[in-house]
Amino acid sequence: MTATPIKLVEVGPRDGLQNEQAVTTADKIQLVNDLTAAGVSYIETGSFVSPKWVPQMADSADVFAGIQRKSGVTYAALTPNLKGFEAALAASADEVAIFGAASEGFSQKNINCSIAESLERFAPVVEAARAADIRVRGYVSCVLGCPYDGEIAPEQVAWVAEKLHQMGCYEVSLGDTIGVGTPVKAQQMLAAVAAKVPMEQLALHFHNTYGQALANIASCLPMGVRTIDSAVAGLGGCPYARGASGNVASEDVVYMLQGMDYTTGIDLAALIRAGQRICSALGQQPRSNVAIAELAKQAS
Amino acid sequence: MTATPIKLVEVGPRDGLQNEQAVTTADKIQLVNDLTAAGVSYIETGSFVSPKWVPQMADSADVFAGIQRKSGVTYAALTPNLKGFEAALAASADEVAIFGAASEGFSQKNINCSIAESLERFAPVVEAARAADIRVRGYVSCVLGCPYDGEIAPEQVAWVAEKLHQMGCYEVSLGDTIGVGTPVKAQQMLAAVAAKVPMEQLALHFHNTYGQALANIASCLPMGVRTIDSAVAGLGGCPYARGASGNVASEDVVYMLQGMDYTTGIDLAALIRAGQRICSALGQQPRSNVAIAELAKQAS
Repeated sequence: MTATPIKLVEVGPRDGLQNEQAVTTADKIQLVNDLTAAGVSYIETGSFVSPKWVPQMADSADVFAGIQRKSGVTYAALTPNLKGFEAALAASADEVAIFGAASEGFSQKNINCSIAESLERFAPVVEAARAADIRVRGYVSCVLGCPYDGEIAPEQVAWVAEKLHQMGCYEVSLGDTIGVGTPVKAQQMLAAVAAKVPMEQLALHFHNTYGQALANIASCLPMGVRTIDSAVAGLGGCPYARGASGNVASEDVVYMLQGMDYTTGIDLAALIRAGQRICSALGQQPRSNVAIAELAKQAS
Repeated sequence: MTATPIKLVEVGPRDGLQNEQAVTTADKIQLVNDLTAAGVSYIETGSFVSPKWVPQMADSADVFAGIQRKSGVTYAALTPNLKGFEAALAASADEVAIFGAASEGFSQKNINCSIAESLERFAPVVEAARAADIRVRGYVSCVLGCPYDGEIAPEQVAWVAEKLHQMGCYEVSLGDTIGVGTPVKAQQMLAAVAAKVPMEQLALHFHNTYGQALANIASCLPMGVRTIDSAVAGLGGCPYARGASGNVASEDVVYMLQGMDYTTGIDLAALIRAGQRICSALGQQPRSNVAIAELAKQAS
């Protein structure tokens, strides 16, 4: 069996840290540099959103300015609007990302507009990115459930994903924002989306709130998906259940993929150290079982 | 789609607590009663091993004497030898279990004899159980890796499982004792064993040390396995990496199975409460993501 490459999109510095209060710009820069050194090829480095909404990301320009870039690695930024896009461009972000929701309830509560309106708002960002020769990634949130609307029909996810794809997103990342999905539902959702957007342009972005993320990823991999979003040390909480787990841990994903004969180009031991360092800065334990087990083994 | 029944074998009171120092007999009885009330139909309630080896299980007879039994629920005991079997019989255990290893290294270090010798030692237990009309379950440990021997060939696991089956075990439980397995390897191991022992007589007993347990279970379910071992609140540590996770959490398994349209007969909310109560007695947080998320949601 020849090993199949998987692209790991590391979202720790952005999705993982956007709800953390006590993290310095230097810690963020160190994390991005550590991830680069571990062989991660795509790092969502920051976001250019209003500091009124996400004050923790107000230093993203400084983070972009401070990191040591490695050739071949993509340093991306989340940009909800044209102002954010221009700031990302000024910071020399390699790529940008826009985000829509699969649920009307979440769209209204999270970005104060309907799904249709959010898509309209993103159009100028995609236009400007095209003009600047910058690739745009699209996120769809709540693909396996919404804190307000409950279950989400796979067709609804497929509709939003298709709109983002048609608009010009080269990749659409499917987010189980509240981590409630289970394997068969994940497969059904992915199948519905893949009927509208080619599988090679889709990514899984699963949170581990209910412990299901790896099971969902493992169940979707045989369907052909080849891009996985994750956060080192399982950084990131669930804003709808404080104290619960956030993003699936990159270490756990990489360990599983290695065992399944997929390649990621990532040095697992270095990834564990990257997670350990940011967790120590945050005063937290890593929420990666692989990291905990390996560190316990080393200590014993 | 008609819901398919899955038998959940709850090993929390035995496998989960056997490494815990600070747990009273009353706590154990309460746990078994809480699990019974939650609708669990099979509870490994204690073990009759030498208190020299496992002092934490020295009160198993008292636990069996103290629980409130419900009709239709199996209260089982681990019995390594004839002396243990007789004690289990005296305690009115409904079933007993014997345990072999798939790895020579683990067999030698854990029970001080070769695999072949261990099988010989179990023969009189199985004989006595047959005479007493008591069913015997067989465990195989280290099916996906051994702390001493490393990787274990699926054929080796199949050989031990077949021996236990031929000896008279009505069910063989396949244990990833150190929780290192990944989905494809779990499938390959299960396929090799199922070539020797009918699938309906096999169970998965996966530990979550590397966070892979649910992914492994999800990957094996489509192959037809219908019995899953788990421990409420993820009780149980890994003796080879102290501080790391132990058994896969029953709450996380039940949540996943419900989402996949399998039935277990278990009330998830009551199961979460059972885990919460024993964890509070132990002074620990539950290691079930589902429990943590649900309790956080209730608190917010």
